[in-house]
Amino acid sequence: RALSGDVAFLLHRVFMRSISVLGSDKQVAKWIPLATQHKLIGSYAQTELGHGTYLQGLETTAVFDIAAQEFILNTPKISAMKWWPGDMGRSATHTVVFAQLYIHGKCYGIHPFIVQIRSLQDHSLCPGITAGDIGPKMNFEHIDNGYLMLKNVHIPRENMLSKFCEVRPDGTYVRQGSQQINYFTMTTVRISLISDEVLTPLMKSCTIAIRYSAVRRQSKLKPGEQEAKILDYQTQQEKLLPQLAAAYAFHFINDYLQELFDRGYREIQRKNFDMLPELHALSSGFKAVITHHCTAAVEICLRACGGHGYSLLSGLPSLYTKILASCIYEGENTILLLQTARFLIKCFMAANAGQPVPPSVTYLATGKPGKCPAKSKMDFLSPDIYTEAYQHVAVRLISSTASKLQDLIQSGVKKYDAWNQCTVQLVQAAKAHCHYITVKNFAETVEKLETKAGIQRIMKHLCDLFALHGIFSNTGAFLHDGYISAAQMDMVTASYLDLLAVIRKDAVPLVDAFDFTDKCLNSALGSYDGQVYQRLYEWAQKSPTNKMSPAYEKYLKPLLHNTLSKL
Amino acid sequence: RALSGDVAFLLHRVFMRSISVLGSDKQVAKWIPLATQHKLIGSYAQTELGHGTYLQGLETTAVFDIAAQEFILNTPKISAMKWWPGDMGRSATHTVVFAQLYIHGKCYGIHPFIVQIRSLQDHSLCPGITAGDIGPKMNFEHIDNGYLMLKNVHIPRENMLSKFCEVRPDGTYVRQGSQQINYFTMTTVRISLISDEVLTPLMKSCTIAIRYSAVRRQSKLKPGEQEAKILDYQTQQEKLLPQLAAAYAFHFINDYLQELFDRGYREIQRKNFDMLPELHALSSGFKAVITHHCTAAVEICLRACGGHGYSLLSGLPSLYTKILASCIYEGENTILLLQTARFLIKCFMAANAGQPVPPSVTYLATGKPGKCPAKSKMDFLSPDIYTEAYQHVAVRLISSTASKLQDLIQSGVKKYDAWNQCTVQLVQAAKAHCHYITVKNFAETVEKLETKAGIQRIMKHLCDLFALHGIFSNTGAFLHDGYISAAQMDMVTASYLDLLAVIRKDAVPLVDAFDFTDKCLNSALGSYDGQVYQRLYEWAQKSPTNKMSPAYEKYLKPLLHNTLSKL
Repeated sequence: RALSGDVAFLLHRVFMRSISVLGSDKQVAKWIPLATQHKLIGSYAQTELGHGTYLQGLETTAVFDIAAQEFILNTPKISAMKWWPGDMGRSATHTVVFAQLYIHGKCYGIHPFIVQIRSLQDHSLCPGITAGDIGPKMNFEHIDNGYLMLKNVHIPRENMLSKFCEVRPDGTYVRQGSQQINYFTMTTVRISLISDEVLTPLMKSCTIAIRYSAVRRQSKLKPGEQEAKILDYQTQQEKLLPQLAAAYAFHFINDYLQELFDRGYREIQRKNFDMLPELHALSSGFKAVITHHCTAAVEICLRACGGHGYSLLSGLPSLYTKILASCIYEGENTILLLQTARFLIKCFMAANAGQPVPPSVTYLATGKPGKCPAKSKMDFLSPDIYTEAYQHVAVRLISSTASKLQDLIQSGVKKYDAWNQCTVQLVQAAKAHCHYITVKNFAETVEKLETKAGIQRIMKHLCDLFALHGIFSNTGAFLHDGYISAAQMDMVTASYLDLLAVIRKDAVPLVDAFDFTDKCLNSALGSYDGQVYQRLYEWAQKSPTNKMSPAYEKYLKPLLHNTLSKL
Repeated sequence: RALSGDVAFLLHRVFMRSISVLGSDKQVAKWIPLATQHKLIGSYAQTELGHGTYLQGLETTAVFDIAAQEFILNTPKISAMKWWPGDMGRSATHTVVFAQLYIHGKCYGIHPFIVQIRSLQDHSLCPGITAGDIGPKMNFEHIDNGYLMLKNVHIPRENMLSKFCEVRPDGTYVRQGSQQINYFTMTTVRISLISDEVLTPLMKSCTIAIRYSAVRRQSKLKPGEQEAKILDYQTQQEKLLPQLAAAYAFHFINDYLQELFDRGYREIQRKNFDMLPELHALSSGFKAVITHHCTAAVEICLRACGGHGYSLLSGLPSLYTKILASCIYEGENTILLLQTARFLIKCFMAANAGQPVPPSVTYLATGKPGKCPAKSKMDFLSPDIYTEAYQHVAVRLISSTASKLQDLIQSGVKKYDAWNQCTVQLVQAAKAHCHYITVKNFAETVEKLETKAGIQRIMKHLCDLFALHGIFSNTGAFLHDGYISAAQMDMVTASYLDLLAVIRKDAVPLVDAFDFTDKCLNSALGSYDGQVYQRLYEWAQKSPTNKMSPAYEKYLKPLLHNTLSKL
C-alpha cells in the first residue's frame, strides 16, 4: 500500500505546519524538533460532528483561568465533539484543537491550542479525554479518522499558538494582524493537497486507462480487418484525451498557485497580510474546481475501461474512492466556490469604481461586449482566441450576477436573502473565473517551452484540447450573448474533434508499444499501481476458495514476484 | 444485507428468463420447474475476458457432432474464457453459455446452450470445466462473479435453446425469425434492471440526502438567527431537488418501457418480430441514459451530505459503488447509445422519405426551424412549451448529424470512417432523443393524474423542475440555432430557480418532521438502509479497538436492536 501512497500519519505534517505557521518562535523551537523526531504523533482537530464548513459555529471552548495560568477545554455537547481528524482514532498523542477562546467570560473567537491526548508512556488516553475511531469510510481504511471529547482538560497558557494572537498572563488579549490568519493552515493544506492527493490519482488513472485502451481491442472499425484498439474510436478518445489534457492543465496551475502562495507566505512572515484575501479566494476556488474536475475525470477513466475498470485489480476503484473525498475534506466545494465568488464580486465592484484590485482579477475592469473574431476552425487553435473567449464569459457571469444581486437589494430584498437567491449563479461565476485562469496559464506555460520543440508541440495540442473541450462541454456559456456564434461553435466542434485524432496519432503512439501476449489482462498488467498487486495478493490469501484464475497466475505472479523482490 | 437488497443468486433469474424467452416448450417444461424449485442454480455466461460489447466476436465454440448428437464446447484461448458471470465463481451448477455454433465446419453465429458446470451431488466441477472467482470488485462482494473455461465439454443436442433456432438431428439448421432474437434476453434484462438496480438506489439516496439536509444545520442564513437547515440554501436545493424530480421522471419512463416491452413480447411469442428494432433501440438508449443520470445523481446526494455522506454509515457509498456498475454491465453505455443512434438515423431517413416509422420516432418527420413562443418566465411552466423545445433539439441534433454523415460519405470518406467521425455527436443525438421522450412522458403522466389534485400539484412542480433543469444544465443545445433566445434562457433560469424554493416549501416540509435530539447523527439515523446498521455492526465486531463512539452507542444501538428484533 505504501507503494501506491496509502501511508498513515499524514496529519502529522498538518500538525507541524500549523505550529510552523501559527506558532511563536519559542513554540516552534519546542514542538517542531519533537515532531520531526517522531517523539510525538500529531493530529489536527478542527471539524466537529455538528460543524464542518462554518468555523465560527464551532462549539468547543477554551476558557482562560488566570489563577492557574491554564486554558480549560471542553466539548460541551455531542455536536461539539471533534469528528473526522485523521490519525486521531488510535494513533495521535497530540493534536491542535480549534476552540472558542473565552477570557473573563468574553468570547474572542476561534484559536488553536496544542493538546496532549494520549500518554507518551503507555499510549492510554489522558484524563478528561474520550477518543476513538469514527467507523468505516469509503476509503482511507489505513487512516484512523477519529472523534474526540474533552471534559475539563487543562493545558498551560503556553499551548495556545501565539505568533499572531496572544493571551498575556494577566488575561490581556493581543492580536497582531488579521483574525483570518487562524484559518491560514487550511489555505496551505488546500494548496498542498492539489498535487499530493488530487493530481497524482488523476495521472495514474489516465495512464492506466490510456494504456488499457491501446491494447484492448473490441469490435471492428473496418470490415474484414482485425478488431480495433478501443483508443482508435472517437468516443473513447473523447473520454480519455481531455482528461490527460486536464492533468497537465492542473499540473501547471498548481505551479502557479505554489508560486503565488510562496510569495504570500513570505509577506505574512513579515506581518504583511495584504495578499491574504486573494490567496484565500484562489486556493478555495481552485481546490474546488480541481478536485471536482479530477474526481469526474477518474470516474471517466474507470468507466472507460468497462468491467476491467470496475475490478479492484485495475487500481481505478480505489483511486476513485480516494479522490472523491477531496471534494469534501478541507472545505466543502460549494462553500469554497462561494467564498471565491464573494471575493470576485467585491473586486468587480472595486475595479469598476476605478479602485486597485489584486493582479489575478484586473481583467474584471476590461469587460466589453464584443464578438469572437475567429473566421475558421483553425482560428480556434489560437490561444489568444480561446483565452479571450474564456475571459469574456468570466466577466459576463460575474457582472450579470453582480447586477442581479444589486437589483434584488434595490427592490427591497434583504441582503442575505438576495445573496442566497444568487448562489447557484455565483458558483457558476467562480468556476468560470478559475477556468479562465487555468486556460490562460496553460497557454502561457506552453509559450515558455519554446526551446523544447517536440514537447512544446504535444503540449500545445493538449492545451488547445483542454480549452476547446471546455467550450464544447459548456457551449451555452459562450453562445448566450452571441460572443461565439452558432457557425463559430460548429468550428469549435470540428476543431475539437479533429484534435482528438491528431493527439491519438502524435502524442499517444508510445503507449502502443505495450502489447502483452494476452491483450485482455492489461487492465491489471498495464497499471503501475502497487495497489493492484497488493489487493490481488491480499484477496488470494483470504480464503482458499479465492484462487487466482490461470491467466492471472501465469502473468501476474512473475510480475508480483519481480516487484516485491525490488523492494 | 438482505434488508438493503444485497442478495445472491440474481443470475438465477436471468438463467430462467433466457430459457423462458429462447427455449422451446419442451425445454421450458424440463428446466423451469427444476430452477423454480432450486434443484439447480443457474448463471448466464455471455461476456468473455476479451469480449464484452462485441458479441459477434465471442470466441467460445459449440461444434455439432452428428454421430454423438452432441455439441462439443470449447474456450480455445484465454481471451475466450467467460469472465464476469454472476454466481459462477462458486455457486452455479448450470449456466447458459453463448457460443459460436459450428455445423459441418460452417459458423452459424452466436447461440445459447445450457451447460452443467458443477455436480449436483458434491458440487465439484464437471469434467472439462475450470471455474472460479474473478477477484475483488468495487461492490458486489456478495456475488461470486466468475470465470469459466471449457475444454471439450459435451452436451446433448437438446441443450441448445431452440424456440427460434434449431439444429435437427441430421445437422440441418432451421431458423424462425430474426437472428437478433438471441440477444433478446439482454433486452429484457436491460429493462428489468432499471427499476430493480437503478431507480431503487436513487430513491434511497434522495431520501437519505434530503432528510439529512432537513435536519443538518450549518452556517447562518439570517444574522442573529439560529443556524439554517442546509436544505434552505439555494445551492443545496439545486443539488438535491432535481435528483428527486429525476427519480420520478425515470420511474414513469420505466412504466412506459415496461408497457412497450410487454406489448412487444406478446408479439414475439406470436413470432412477429416487427417491434424488435424499436424495443432494442429504446431499451439500449434508456438503459444508458438512466444509469448514467442516476449514477451521477447518487454521487451528488453523497457529496451533498459532506463527510457524513462519505462515511459508510450513511449508506450512500455502497449505493454509489453499486449503481456505478450499472453503467458498465449489460452493455457499455456508449455502445448502447450508438445502437440507439443507428436506429434514429435510419428512422430519420425513412421518415423524411415518407416511409412509415415506429410510433416513438414519428416526430422526426415534423422537424422545422421555428422559435420558442414563450414570452415570460411563467410560460416555461407550460409542458407544451418545454416539451416542444426538447423535441426541437432532438430533431436538430439527429438531422445535423445525419447531414454530417452524408456529407462525409459524399466527400469520399469510407462509410465506417465517416460513422466513427460522427460518433461523439451521434451519442449526443441519442441522449437528446431519450431526454425528449422522458420529458414528454412525465408531462403526459402528470396530466393523467387529474383526480388526485394534491399529488398532481407536487408532481407538476417536479415535472417542470426536471424539464427546466435539463435546459439549464444544457443551455447550448437550446441556444444554438436560436430556438430559445438569450432573453428566454434568462426566463428559464429564473423559473428554474424559483421552482426550487416552491418545491422546498410545498413538497418537502414533510421531512422537516424528522428532528432528532442530536441533529448531527441523522446521516445514519435518517436512512432506512439496513446496510448502515449491518456495516456498523460488522465493523464493531472486527476488532476490540473498533469501538462505537458514545453518540452511536446511545442512538444506534437501540435502533439496531429494534431493527433486528423485527426480523
